Amino acid sequence: MIKTRIEYPSSEKIYVDGVLNNIKVGMRKIILTDTISIVDGEEKRKENKPVVVYDTSGPYSDPNIETDLRKGLPRMRFEWGIRRKDIEQLTNFTSEYGRRRMSDPSFNDIRFPIKHKPYRAKEGRRITQMHYAKKRIITPEMEYVAIRENQLIESMGLKSYITPNFVRKEVAAGRAVIPANINHPEAEPMIIGQKFLVKINTNIGNSALSSSIEEEVEKAIWSCKWGGDTLMDLSTGKNIHETREWIIRNCPVPMGTVPIYQALEKVNGKIEALSWDIYRDTLIEQAEQGVDYFTIHAGILRAHIDLASNRLTGIVSRGGSIMAKWMQIHKQENFLYSHFDEICEILAAYDVAVSLGDGLRPGSIYDANDVAQFAELNVLGKLTQKAWDQFVQVIIEGPGHVPMNKIKANMTEQIYSCHHAPFYTLGPLVTDIAPGYDHITSAIGAAQIASYGTAMICYVTPKEHLGLPNKEDVRNGVIAYKIAAHAADIAKGHPGSQIRDNALSKARFEFRWKDQFNLSLDPDRALEYYKETSNTEEGFCTMCGPNFCAMKLTKELKDCAHIKTKEE
Amino acid sequence: MIKTRIEYPSSEKIYVDGVLNNIKVGMRKIILTDTISIVDGEEKRKENKPVVVYDTSGPYSDPNIETDLRKGLPRMRFEWGIRRKDIEQLTNFTSEYGRRRMSDPSFNDIRFPIKHKPYRAKEGRRITQMHYAKKRIITPEMEYVAIRENQLIESMGLKSYITPNFVRKEVAAGRAVIPANINHPEAEPMIIGQKFLVKINTNIGNSALSSSIEEEVEKAIWSCKWGGDTLMDLSTGKNIHETREWIIRNCPVPMGTVPIYQALEKVNGKIEALSWDIYRDTLIEQAEQGVDYFTIHAGILRAHIDLASNRLTGIVSRGGSIMAKWMQIHKQENFLYSHFDEICEILAAYDVAVSLGDGLRPGSIYDANDVAQFAELNVLGKLTQKAWDQFVQVIIEGPGHVPMNKIKANMTEQIYSCHHAPFYTLGPLVTDIAPGYDHITSAIGAAQIASYGTAMICYVTPKEHLGLPNKEDVRNGVIAYKIAAHAADIAKGHPGSQIRDNALSKARFEFRWKDQFNLSLDPDRALEYYKETSNTEEGFCTMCGPNFCAMKLTKELKDCAHIKTKEE
Repeated sequence: MIKTRIEYPSSEKIYVDGVLNNIKVGMRKIILTDTISIVDGEEKRKENKPVVVYDTSGPYSDPNIETDLRKGLPRMRFEWGIRRKDIEQLTNFTSEYGRRRMSDPSFNDIRFPIKHKPYRAKEGRRITQMHYAKKRIITPEMEYVAIRENQLIESMGLKSYITPNFVRKEVAAGRAVIPANINHPEAEPMIIGQKFLVKINTNIGNSALSSSIEEEVEKAIWSCKWGGDTLMDLSTGKNIHETREWIIRNCPVPMGTVPIYQALEKVNGKIEALSWDIYRDTLIEQAEQGVDYFTIHAGILRAHIDLASNRLTGIVSRGGSIMAKWMQIHKQENFLYSHFDEICEILAAYDVAVSLGDGLRPGSIYDANDVAQFAELNVLGKLTQKAWDQFVQVIIEGPGHVPMNKIKANMTEQIYSCHHAPFYTLGPLVTDIAPGYDHITSAIGAAQIASYGTAMICYVTPKEHLGLPNKEDVRNGVIAYKIAAHAADIAKGHPGSQIRDNALSKARFEFRWKDQFNLSLDPDRALEYYKETSNTEEGFCTMCGPNFCAMKLTKELKDCAHIKTKEE
Repeated sequence: MIKTRIEYPSSEKIYVDGVLNNIKVGMRKIILTDTISIVDGEEKRKENKPVVVYDTSGPYSDPNIETDLRKGLPRMRFEWGIRRKDIEQLTNFTSEYGRRRMSDPSFNDIRFPIKHKPYRAKEGRRITQMHYAKKRIITPEMEYVAIRENQLIESMGLKSYITPNFVRKEVAAGRAVIPANINHPEAEPMIIGQKFLVKINTNIGNSALSSSIEEEVEKAIWSCKWGGDTLMDLSTGKNIHETREWIIRNCPVPMGTVPIYQALEKVNGKIEALSWDIYRDTLIEQAEQGVDYFTIHAGILRAHIDLASNRLTGIVSRGGSIMAKWMQIHKQENFLYSHFDEICEILAAYDVAVSLGDGLRPGSIYDANDVAQFAELNVLGKLTQKAWDQFVQVIIEGPGHVPMNKIKANMTEQIYSCHHAPFYTLGPLVTDIAPGYDHITSAIGAAQIASYGTAMICYVTPKEHLGLPNKEDVRNGVIAYKIAAHAADIAKGHPGSQIRDNALSKARFEFRWKDQFNLSLDPDRALEYYKETSNTEEGFCTMCGPNFCAMKLTKELKDCAHIKTKEE
């Protein structure tokens, strides 16, 4: 059995109510102990205010909500209903494959037990967040993310610039995206944009060679526990449809996919058999399940293939290489490009965001920032405009492998080519020579590019280049990326981002060990390491021992200064 | 028993002879397999040249050298003898403590079995590398490091600017340091300077609460195996003198210490009892054992203590806090500052380099780049000039905890204040909230500051802030820092630094799995992860499975293009 209850030490689940809308925004409040000092032989206590932190764990960390994987999470967003007048419930799934799959009794055993009929925009109606934003309507989602991003600051009694109307303006301009498919009402809204907290994405998913549905659902919850902001299901193995349904129904964060993977599975891996019809049906199938954003490799064109031919590592994007091969076989332009308007029409009907894939991202330091990469980026900019014309929200995907001296150019070029649509990068890895440690190699690049303005960074686990990550790899990947994202928030001067650092450092300096651990990104790990060598809660640890603890000495220095002041 | 033989897969120990001096420089040559392709049904093989990499493992990786911890490593540098005419062997140890300790029978069991009488400069002679450099003499050490730094480039048949005379000029100008105590002839020379490969230091050492001599020697060898360029013994526990002797005699890389730690042990941890005499005797004791560089906190002055009083985390440097407390108790200026000229005189007699400690480095993001930190840095600049006046080689230590947006200023200020003496930083950590993962937090900052010109970065292990590192923590810390250093070398455009990346990426693209692993920083880990999920050597791994391997698809693309060309 999978453990679904998420517990953080010394933490409470709290909710902040909306003002404009009937919403409540979940957060985690970390309770701290008092600072104790001895003055004139008497114990003095001083309260340390609780620290409120961003919380991606959804209902799993609320002890008042009974979660059951077989029922799925509460369909919270469905209650908000602002879009109700613009959408309609369908009597059945639109996708042919989805219908077939839903009625085939041989999948009864692995199918998610509850069937939710899908919703779609009514004929002639626009329902994307971008559309509402441009109409100057503040949706519940917009207010939700404004409260969510503001929590740290508000808990300190301060005000920041992140208001619901600020969110609206950023979404309207395309500078920020709220991935929120109407068919995934279980997801708590979050925002991806340069002016907001840097977000991290985690990838899970089985391949033909390994992993079960249960394992994937467990990894999804595990990812939310450690702080994953969105989740991509990159499954390429068996039962993709059913695996995805289980994950979406139990996933409190937006979920992304790369639909071409499933399309290729449908033709048994034969690239030549891929077609627009199959792909189109897959898009609708997944949109009606509730996928919040699709990675679509529409920017790699026939003319680009030659540009990549002199590369050291060719095309390393799965989607990019599939489309390149399809183009070569069929001697036709990329059908994702030629059908891009139709794609946007479908996406708009469910408010699925498009994440324009970088099929030509460099797969090695040698190939970084080459002409192939930037030629595709330029096309992505043109596609961005096309998507925006239909009010479809757009994210731009970026590399990959880039040496530190070439990272900034990636951000500059992206902003220039893609009109400030949010950038979403995979790392980048800053060297190729550390397989087994690529969560670190890439966190170095990710922190840097995020500090330049990249809105979301896609995690890399220690297994990158070597195999599929297990649960512990997911944890290590997520924490490495939380570090990178948080470091970038501080570097960008994001309001309130340093509050947690300050509280932790104060606890450290005052030897409030438990507070230090509880405030950390991974309290369990910190405590485990501490216990390995210490069985003391005194004012020092095994690192230095009693005589060499600098913090203990400084405290004595301060106490000494204090006495002096009193005497004189 | 400690395993001393270091083995790297598919690697040979090779030596490159000097031209100016009778020296041979050890390196590691990684042998690669052929690239195999099928053209017109026939197997074609193409040779891949071996890749030569920098090697810190010393004689431990040479199968022709029998190492014995009880005998110590070959005293290679002693044979070179260029300094012979300037130095003399003493009949006994100069330090009172050293003599007492050497003759006390109660330490017979733990004492290193062989007694090497120490050397010292003859009266009136100058023997430091800086002195020779200024005299336009190219020492064997200078030629050694020139060959060592050049290896990658030369193995590709190219030439770089790093010649023995270039090394000499950098050392003469104080821009680079070759830590090479005449009493540590076991160490292979290496160079620390902005224009050379970025180096990493590892810290080992017991504390009062844990660890044995054997464990520490094992960690030292382990650190050299993974790529540590220098090693600091930060022991503060029992038998510091004997532990150090064992480590030095078996250490193929330069070793540093913080002598105030042992001085404090000698007065049973009573800071008030510390004195110049005890410290002076400790310096001489350690210099005659062969310590290659001393961290000396001579820059923290009485006037600085108030500057640090409003800090969130006060003084977090052990040495800094000891000296601060001493000054406060005695109401006197830091004796390391007031006796700095005498200190330099002692150091010059053995060619011990001074690493000017940053007693006021920030211990939290909040305290970064504050007035206390930069006031001390300014004093370090003045001390640099004083040391150079006596031809003592100087390194400057830096922080600590610094947010990414404040890292560059650290480098700029250091260059401005310290006249281009090499900078040597601890991280910096870019956020405070990740205890248990601070090797990652700090590798992000280290990579960045190294790319700006920091010459050596001091590793941080996952146990930082929590306890003493074990062997596995040392490995994780070293690899994280090898990544940061290498990423910075590439970003700086250091000649030849990308050769290894290119070779590894080529191997990856061609599915030469073993070559990919053998070229990586930690072949054991890469292989272990790969084997966890794969039992195949085919052209894909479990990550993507056969239909979704982008590299496989690109190869087909290339093959396809090849056929097309032939047909047309």
